[in-house]
Amino acid sequence: MTEKLEALYEHLAFCFESRKFADLRIALLDAEPADIASFIENNLDDKEQIFFFRLLPKEQASDVFIELDSDTQEDFIRSFNDKELKAVLDDMFMDDTVDIIEEMPANVVKRILRASTPEDRKSINALLEYPEDSAGSIMTLEYVSLSANITVEDAFDRIRKIGPNKETIYTCYITDNKKHLVGVTTVKELLLANRADKIGDIMDTSVITVSTLEDKENVAFKFSKYDFLALPVVDKEGCLVGIVTVDDAVDVIQEEATEDIQRMAAILPSEKPYLKQSIFSIWKSRIPWLVLLLVASTFTSMVLARYEKSLSTVLTAFVPMLMGAAGNAGGQSSVTIIRAIAVNEISFKDIFRVILKELLVAFLVGLSVGIVCFLKIQLIDNLYNEISIYENLVISGVCVISIVMAKLVGCILPLLAKKIKLDPAVVASPLMTTIVDVLSLIIYCSIAIAILP
Amino acid sequence: MTEKLEALYEHLAFCFESRKFADLRIALLDAEPADIASFIENNLDDKEQIFFFRLLPKEQASDVFIELDSDTQEDFIRSFNDKELKAVLDDMFMDDTVDIIEEMPANVVKRILRASTPEDRKSINALLEYPEDSAGSIMTLEYVSLSANITVEDAFDRIRKIGPNKETIYTCYITDNKKHLVGVTTVKELLLANRADKIGDIMDTSVITVSTLEDKENVAFKFSKYDFLALPVVDKEGCLVGIVTVDDAVDVIQEEATEDIQRMAAILPSEKPYLKQSIFSIWKSRIPWLVLLLVASTFTSMVLARYEKSLSTVLTAFVPMLMGAAGNAGGQSSVTIIRAIAVNEISFKDIFRVILKELLVAFLVGLSVGIVCFLKIQLIDNLYNEISIYENLVISGVCVISIVMAKLVGCILPLLAKKIKLDPAVVASPLMTTIVDVLSLIIYCSIAIAILP
Repeated sequence: MTEKLEALYEHLAFCFESRKFADLRIALLDAEPADIASFIENNLDDKEQIFFFRLLPKEQASDVFIELDSDTQEDFIRSFNDKELKAVLDDMFMDDTVDIIEEMPANVVKRILRASTPEDRKSINALLEYPEDSAGSIMTLEYVSLSANITVEDAFDRIRKIGPNKETIYTCYITDNKKHLVGVTTVKELLLANRADKIGDIMDTSVITVSTLEDKENVAFKFSKYDFLALPVVDKEGCLVGIVTVDDAVDVIQEEATEDIQRMAAILPSEKPYLKQSIFSIWKSRIPWLVLLLVASTFTSMVLARYEKSLSTVLTAFVPMLMGAAGNAGGQSSVTIIRAIAVNEISFKDIFRVILKELLVAFLVGLSVGIVCFLKIQLIDNLYNEISIYENLVISGVCVISIVMAKLVGCILPLLAKKIKLDPAVVASPLMTTIVDVLSLIIYCSIAIAILP
Repeated sequence: MTEKLEALYEHLAFCFESRKFADLRIALLDAEPADIASFIENNLDDKEQIFFFRLLPKEQASDVFIELDSDTQEDFIRSFNDKELKAVLDDMFMDDTVDIIEEMPANVVKRILRASTPEDRKSINALLEYPEDSAGSIMTLEYVSLSANITVEDAFDRIRKIGPNKETIYTCYITDNKKHLVGVTTVKELLLANRADKIGDIMDTSVITVSTLEDKENVAFKFSKYDFLALPVVDKEGCLVGIVTVDDAVDVIQEEATEDIQRMAAILPSEKPYLKQSIFSIWKSRIPWLVLLLVASTFTSMVLARYEKSLSTVLTAFVPMLMGAAGNAGGQSSVTIIRAIAVNEISFKDIFRVILKELLVAFLVGLSVGIVCFLKIQLIDNLYNEISIYENLVISGVCVISIVMAKLVGCILPLLAKKIKLDPAVVASPLMTTIVDVLSLIIYCSIAIAILP
């Protein structure tokens, strides 16, 4: 937390405790909604929270409300009377209302819908029907639409009139009388144009759009590729139904990265922040893969049980090292490819380029690690264990082979997963470990037994 | 790739090959710079590339140029004559020029600086001096500044005049005559205000700023928290020196997530896309941790060599399973905490809350996995190996203890790393594996030898 923010929080707490509500309001008007929300949640107890919230200047209440955690939002909604709830909802953009509704239990949802105007209720219900990860689920309905035959001057009048209730005014969409999207323009272009120019003459007719059912990850990718502030969402007929703004895209990018990281670490993804998750829900997100991987490890135990008696104790001591090296090498490849797929750098058609590249890298990496392995065993491990040079050559050789094998498995699995439309991060990371573990063990045992007496 | 984009690429290729340059220009004017850049790189050979680039409408050349890979940029700069280079540079924003310069060899940098105006050269040199990961390194100098005593009407005149060369006009910064940042306003607010209003009366005086030396990750975090389109960058005296725009923040968020993912997978991060990296540079990014972890695995070999003779072959067969379970469990915790730190959800002061939470989760997870482990050994492993119920109890018991231990190590390490200002992702993930491997092995061997005959 910055010093400035700490000072603000101290001042808010002081004004609140000493009941200097006029000073409090002045301080609040200057503060950012996100900061006020985090002050409410971290510095006040339950009763104080709702009391404090009611002190907020009217124009800030909704902005602060959407920044609160869903648990706090639920508590607040239960404490609100109908008038208060309506006031908060009226100032909110539709996509925020929908985000809140998605986290609430049924009885709270009913209250929210009852407090909305019939028109809003219709829009909310429509938005709620889009699949969870679609563009439709993150779009907002509050955009500026213009018609092509008005002048720039008219456009500014319209923006002034409807602008206050729109999530962004800077990108304006031009639609025909059947709501087909025909062009786009920006306030910058409007400002630089002549007042008498027709919108139809200055608008850009080649518009990048997303469809309502498009994956929101894809939408976020378009923002990072094209540097837009907003993207129009169109239905199958090419009619404009909403827009996605860059701030929502930023959230999607953050969330998707977090989810991919969780999946790679064998965790079922959760959208809730760590400290807000219950012990039970953390348990639920961690147990499936742990159990699956435990059961899968039966294969390594089987291989070891079968070969172990023929393996000298000297060689057995290096099993964890070899499995570790293969696992790490495979992990490097699979994670690299998973991420490259996630940020649209590579796709299935690159599979042969990727395999060739990983194969070359694998030989280089395998050889280097193999040499280090040989030297390490000669110089370090020989200090506490007697290892013959033949044994060392077998161990180091297996190290090279396992690394090459692991890197191949690591790069092929995510691409195959993508091809059969599974999430590369889910399938490839934990599955890769199991396959690489078993294969490296089989390679080790069979080579060692075949070569060494 | 979408169908629309494929159609565009086909059309561009057709016009180019059949030398229909007039049609080509028309098609290009409608296309996005990012798409044109990727067409040039993926569909044309080296000679065609520069020829195609020279056909671009003048107003698009710079926009397309900044979207190219640095290798292609370098080739192009070497092919440009001085006039061409100057034309491309003149239309570029300073932060983009600096991004390009940072990737170029010294002789190309010299040519770029020689082709810039003296004034630009000064700004470029100033920007180049900011540390690599600082706000200064990603800021742009082209912003709209206003003075507090002009009217809204004057402000619009100024925006119309200087707007075309600014990266964003939508957020305007109000500075006094010593360049101190005193307020901020937006074009939306200006549009909704009266033309005669003084800027000083409508501006927002509580401005969220970042300092030139602030970590760019921190800057990106502020964008995701506050939903801004731009953030002002101020020096130690509070003078406005530049702005960071949301599109740059989006890039930072993507890059930082990629880097964290790479670090967690024991790879030294690289900013280049996978397919553009040379075999040697991939080798360089992967070899250090592999070698370090290989050397660190000496400890597991030592422990195994010491205890192995007293360990029955039945028990040895479960070493990979136990180490795997502990490693996976620890990885879940460390990755969760590393990510929560990265997105500013938790900090060092939460250490005791986190430890308590992880401890409770660890007991639940450990017990559940332990029970599954016991059943699996009774029902599956007994099919191919004779395991007494006492041995099974020891193995399953050690599984529980190792998981609890691994989760504790996994949650404490990242927080400690953060405390001593090391990157949690670098230290915690690979180090965690080594510590957990050794500890779980020691726990297993010592308990088994103490309890079993």
